[in-house]
Amino acid sequence: MIENPFYTEEVHGPYSFYNLGDFALEGGGVIPNCTLAYNTFGTLNDAKDNVIIIPTWFSGTSKDYESYIGEGRALDPNKYFIIIINQIGNGLSSSPHNSPDPIAMNKFPKVRISDDVRAQHHFITDHFGIEEIALVVGGSMGAQQTYEWAVRFPKMVKRAAPIAGTAKNTVHDYLFTKTLLEAITSDPGWNNGNYTSHKEVAAGLGRHANIWAVMGLSTEFYKQEKWRLFGVESVEAFMHEFLQPLFQAMDPNNLLTMGWKWQHGDVSRMTDGNLREALGRIEAKVFVMPIDEDMFFPPRDCEEEQKFIPNSELRTIHSIAGHFGLFGGEGNYYFDQIDRHLKELLSL
Amino acid sequence: MIENPFYTEEVHGPYSFYNLGDFALEGGGVIPNCTLAYNTFGTLNDAKDNVIIIPTWFSGTSKDYESYIGEGRALDPNKYFIIIINQIGNGLSSSPHNSPDPIAMNKFPKVRISDDVRAQHHFITDHFGIEEIALVVGGSMGAQQTYEWAVRFPKMVKRAAPIAGTAKNTVHDYLFTKTLLEAITSDPGWNNGNYTSHKEVAAGLGRHANIWAVMGLSTEFYKQEKWRLFGVESVEAFMHEFLQPLFQAMDPNNLLTMGWKWQHGDVSRMTDGNLREALGRIEAKVFVMPIDEDMFFPPRDCEEEQKFIPNSELRTIHSIAGHFGLFGGEGNYYFDQIDRHLKELLSL
Repeated sequence: MIENPFYTEEVHGPYSFYNLGDFALEGGGVIPNCTLAYNTFGTLNDAKDNVIIIPTWFSGTSKDYESYIGEGRALDPNKYFIIIINQIGNGLSSSPHNSPDPIAMNKFPKVRISDDVRAQHHFITDHFGIEEIALVVGGSMGAQQTYEWAVRFPKMVKRAAPIAGTAKNTVHDYLFTKTLLEAITSDPGWNNGNYTSHKEVAAGLGRHANIWAVMGLSTEFYKQEKWRLFGVESVEAFMHEFLQPLFQAMDPNNLLTMGWKWQHGDVSRMTDGNLREALGRIEAKVFVMPIDEDMFFPPRDCEEEQKFIPNSELRTIHSIAGHFGLFGGEGNYYFDQIDRHLKELLSL
Repeated sequence: MIENPFYTEEVHGPYSFYNLGDFALEGGGVIPNCTLAYNTFGTLNDAKDNVIIIPTWFSGTSKDYESYIGEGRALDPNKYFIIIINQIGNGLSSSPHNSPDPIAMNKFPKVRISDDVRAQHHFITDHFGIEEIALVVGGSMGAQQTYEWAVRFPKMVKRAAPIAGTAKNTVHDYLFTKTLLEAITSDPGWNNGNYTSHKEVAAGLGRHANIWAVMGLSTEFYKQEKWRLFGVESVEAFMHEFLQPLFQAMDPNNLLTMGWKWQHGDVSRMTDGNLREALGRIEAKVFVMPIDEDMFFPPRDCEEEQKFIPNSELRTIHSIAGHFGLFGGEGNYYFDQIDRHLKELLSL
């Protein structure tokens, strides 16, 4: 358990906590006093049928989705009760860096997407008495959790919108994630997970950021100098003032926990490896929303899965920022697409 | 200067050597007794107008192009005098690992694409008395050298076919190459270039291979299990029996020399940064041949440059192996396309 000022309400708040007690993981470990950090917008109506669940992406927090929410928009807090739930390992919910022994630091157990979704289900049913979800929507690992929700709780989830993510991780994506994790674990400062400050792993976290710079964006993003979208004046500033400091503020073991989870995301674990059968279980109306320039969740991978989902459509989002389009750097150009599709989905 | 059994005629031969003497580099350094390793096929005709030059790609050698050459094919040794020239730093020509002091190992000077092409020009004019080149063709860094040839010696080069490469390296590609180099330099065994055996850098070279696994191929390559093209039975075998051993046999400083050169490839250095003017100088007939699934030399980047070349056409090659399509893993499916385009180009 170590201090890291990045994972605080000053940076990512406000948020609340829900304590699950001892939470048994699919892989066999237990997280004692497993805690989910969450944030809500709007009010749960009496029928309890205006619920939107948003799970977080790799390295992200509930804060990242604030730009997706607003009056008059698809995710309208005047109409919906929106719950953003931080995934386990993201630094706000139970994570390697904030857990005491016996699961502190590198002793933190392996967590799966399915563990997150079971934990989230327990939380919203127990705490709010929710039995129906109008929409689950999330980007990247948030999309992985969205798929898991729709397959695992088909009666409960009425609509689902996985953005820039897959139901079953691809081999290529697994290998990409591997390079991200190796950038961290190859740093002698990581010390097999036993550092005393994330700063000791600054070099590895910097290389981790550099790999994101290649795969997270697009060739065209750089050609058109679209790093300006992130408020910087040069590609060097994009690297050294945005990307590297962003990841260097994070906890290495937290990233490794999320990365392993991402690599192993696969709804077909519920159907003995049969992806078609797993996706065929979905009863929700689904808009599958890949980003056209995404280098590791490319539209064709998402489209292949979409065809297995009974009541679904492919709605491809255009963003020159590739996977990092999720950050909303393209502003209204991006959010107008998201809102248009989600409004239509919510009207169905 | 250290021993490395990978860079021998047993593995990559046969080849010959040409000694340039002291070769002054554009960046200011000198390579004493600068040596180019090369291999030839066919016979130089009396008019000396049947010459085809092929420069090598990153980490590759003259051996790699043997599958591009054959009787009845475009690169026909019965018709053409084909000279494959190993780039400086590739381990067969003058390189960090095989150079004595004062330029041994990490003291090896920075070499540019332009240095290679000037050295190659010196070699073929001096040694063979060649004044006209029917075709320059090469893949990846071989394409970079092909562009340099066509811009630097516009009267001499009659035809050019850059495959899967650019005339000016893109920012995205620069950042990709940076991750490759960092995989090596982050290994403590690299020791700032002062290792006693490349085996001390096996971990870094392995991570280098892992990044290639992501960017060198394509998402679809893995989905369709096309690693079978490389003679292996699983993706694990593709990584551990093909890719990692391939790069772990190489010299780290050699790869760093080639990588830096790749990052800085830019024909517009001859025209004060004006790429349109540089490419406008080309008098050769040019077929620009990107590979459709290439993740870092994508067709749109190549097409943008092609439009600046007066007498040129875009001829996109289809290969699910992405950039590694160059290796010819798809066999006739790949080579038939290459041969068809090159035959047409040579007939113009």
